[in-house]
Amino acid sequence: MKPKNDTFLRALKRESTEYTPLWLMRQAGRYLPEYCATRSKAGSFMALAQSPDLACEVTLQPVERFNLDAAILFSDILTIPDAMGLGLSFVAGEGPKFAKPISTESDVEKLFVPDPNVELKYVMDAVRQIRTTLNNKVPLIGFSGSPFTLACYMVEGGSSVDYRKFKTMIYKNPSMVHKLLEVNTHSVIAYLNAQIQAGAQAVMIFDTWGGTLPHELYKEFSLKYLKKIVDSLTKEVDGEKVPTIVFTKGSSPWIKEIASIGTDAIGLDWMASLKQARLVTGDCVALQGNLDPMVLFAGEEAIRREARRVIDDYGIVGNGGHVFNLGHGINKDTPPEAVQVLVDEVHSYSRKMHK
Amino acid sequence: MKPKNDTFLRALKRESTEYTPLWLMRQAGRYLPEYCATRSKAGSFMALAQSPDLACEVTLQPVERFNLDAAILFSDILTIPDAMGLGLSFVAGEGPKFAKPISTESDVEKLFVPDPNVELKYVMDAVRQIRTTLNNKVPLIGFSGSPFTLACYMVEGGSSVDYRKFKTMIYKNPSMVHKLLEVNTHSVIAYLNAQIQAGAQAVMIFDTWGGTLPHELYKEFSLKYLKKIVDSLTKEVDGEKVPTIVFTKGSSPWIKEIASIGTDAIGLDWMASLKQARLVTGDCVALQGNLDPMVLFAGEEAIRREARRVIDDYGIVGNGGHVFNLGHGINKDTPPEAVQVLVDEVHSYSRKMHK
Repeated sequence: MKPKNDTFLRALKRESTEYTPLWLMRQAGRYLPEYCATRSKAGSFMALAQSPDLACEVTLQPVERFNLDAAILFSDILTIPDAMGLGLSFVAGEGPKFAKPISTESDVEKLFVPDPNVELKYVMDAVRQIRTTLNNKVPLIGFSGSPFTLACYMVEGGSSVDYRKFKTMIYKNPSMVHKLLEVNTHSVIAYLNAQIQAGAQAVMIFDTWGGTLPHELYKEFSLKYLKKIVDSLTKEVDGEKVPTIVFTKGSSPWIKEIASIGTDAIGLDWMASLKQARLVTGDCVALQGNLDPMVLFAGEEAIRREARRVIDDYGIVGNGGHVFNLGHGINKDTPPEAVQVLVDEVHSYSRKMHK
Repeated sequence: MKPKNDTFLRALKRESTEYTPLWLMRQAGRYLPEYCATRSKAGSFMALAQSPDLACEVTLQPVERFNLDAAILFSDILTIPDAMGLGLSFVAGEGPKFAKPISTESDVEKLFVPDPNVELKYVMDAVRQIRTTLNNKVPLIGFSGSPFTLACYMVEGGSSVDYRKFKTMIYKNPSMVHKLLEVNTHSVIAYLNAQIQAGAQAVMIFDTWGGTLPHELYKEFSLKYLKKIVDSLTKEVDGEKVPTIVFTKGSSPWIKEIASIGTDAIGLDWMASLKQARLVTGDCVALQGNLDPMVLFAGEEAIRREARRVIDDYGIVGNGGHVFNLGHGINKDTPPEAVQVLVDEVHSYSRKMHK
């Protein structure tokens, strides 16, 4: 069933829209006081992510507060390796930690493709509950980390500035890394298809760290697996297309190649040029992005001016094709009123330009 | 006077060379036990940087240990704002700190262009002493931070993950930021020209954080000032060209534009493609780079293979034009033996290919 507001889905299909739809990466997050209240009720980040009730509650919060054109499932990008038994936890101020990171061939051999309806049932329950509660107001986006990005955390055991352990493995033992990426790829396919089956109306793959690879290796260690995923995703549900969005931070050098894997849209970081990306891709994909999240700290005048700059950079075309977003997740200290200004400017300015 | 080994200078001028010359960003650094010994003798990083004797000693160390094709002045990129009175210090594990960061219009008004032969005389003394001690073995590279990169630290007061303070200033009060960048630009010009006068045979501008700007703003807040600098640098000393190298981390989207400012060479990070950069620039500049520094942790076989990959990515041409380097500063935990293997492979493989 079509959402009442399907502007986001139509823009991704490069169909005509009355204005530029928007949503924000990490829109259900710590910048919202109501999110912080729910999180503190949950006790921990993992308890929040694993409770379908609470995940549904925080997913809906930004959609209720702002006039956003899509909801995105509240979850973590590391649910898959956690379901593989790596033991995910979050230490305050340090980010994610795995109790059992991957370091040997035998660690890789032990990995398995989690059954999304068993080990990750809590995610599917959340998707179903969100769809019910959203009541078709706006579409729901499902998501996953990319095989490469998941592997970064699985090998490093958490965040890293230089990915030294994982990079060493890539350069020293590439075949072992490919085994790891294969398991991740099959896991992501099963996970995203299950989210689609549970009700996700579009899916986004966060290849957050693919951009840290040397040029040639990006294709071999990240893009190849992104293509496998896009090839294997459910394309339609009940006659409705389920669009895919691929986001690689630092993807400017690879935009043409990413467009060629068959994804419907590319998410761009704030360093990329929407105009150049349109030229390079020949408008064969939709583009999502790409306001610098720091603009939201600079006050109303700057927010409105920079929002217009992003819309003008894409340029208005008859057939949609642009979804407004930040170029990265919203910063936890962002004033919520700044988001209100942004939503207003994107909608009102683009509506004028679309006329 | 020409250095005995002038391969590096000839490659930058895109003249024919017998092999691909190499040096490494941060080659005089903590991965060398002899550097750590000198640093501990100095007491602090600033004491080391401010002593011409000790700066000369550590500059020479990597050139004595490895068969490198250039020496680079040992100094810090933040000497200019320190000379402006901002009070630079280094706290162990935290990086640089300024006692008096810039936050208001009046802070900017108080800034002045330091006289390189007064406030920064210790740097010029080091350059002269290094040239004498080097005895024309290899060329000496001088360097400076870019106006934008200096400003990042001057406003943030130190390192930052998102440059929130400086970005907010850029979006909120761009004219104040331009005033700051103007002072920095004049300071960098005076500083680099003084280094050239003191004996630097090539100069490099480190625009380390320019790549964190949105596409349009990069040109306005970083590239414009890089062009002013390149335009104003001393081009020749005693009939010998003094080549310039501009390094912007994350520069892939701007390579064509950087090539157009008149620099002799562009330094590339490890995510960039040398092959694509050659295409985009039409070989009108030399290129420097771009091995992933993490390769140096992966053992001899990987180091040799990845070094060849970089050389092959550039491709051998009759007229030089490639200077081998890492795509970022060498990591402090790098085994020195790994550098030995790298130097050997770059020299021997490229010598075969140049035949």
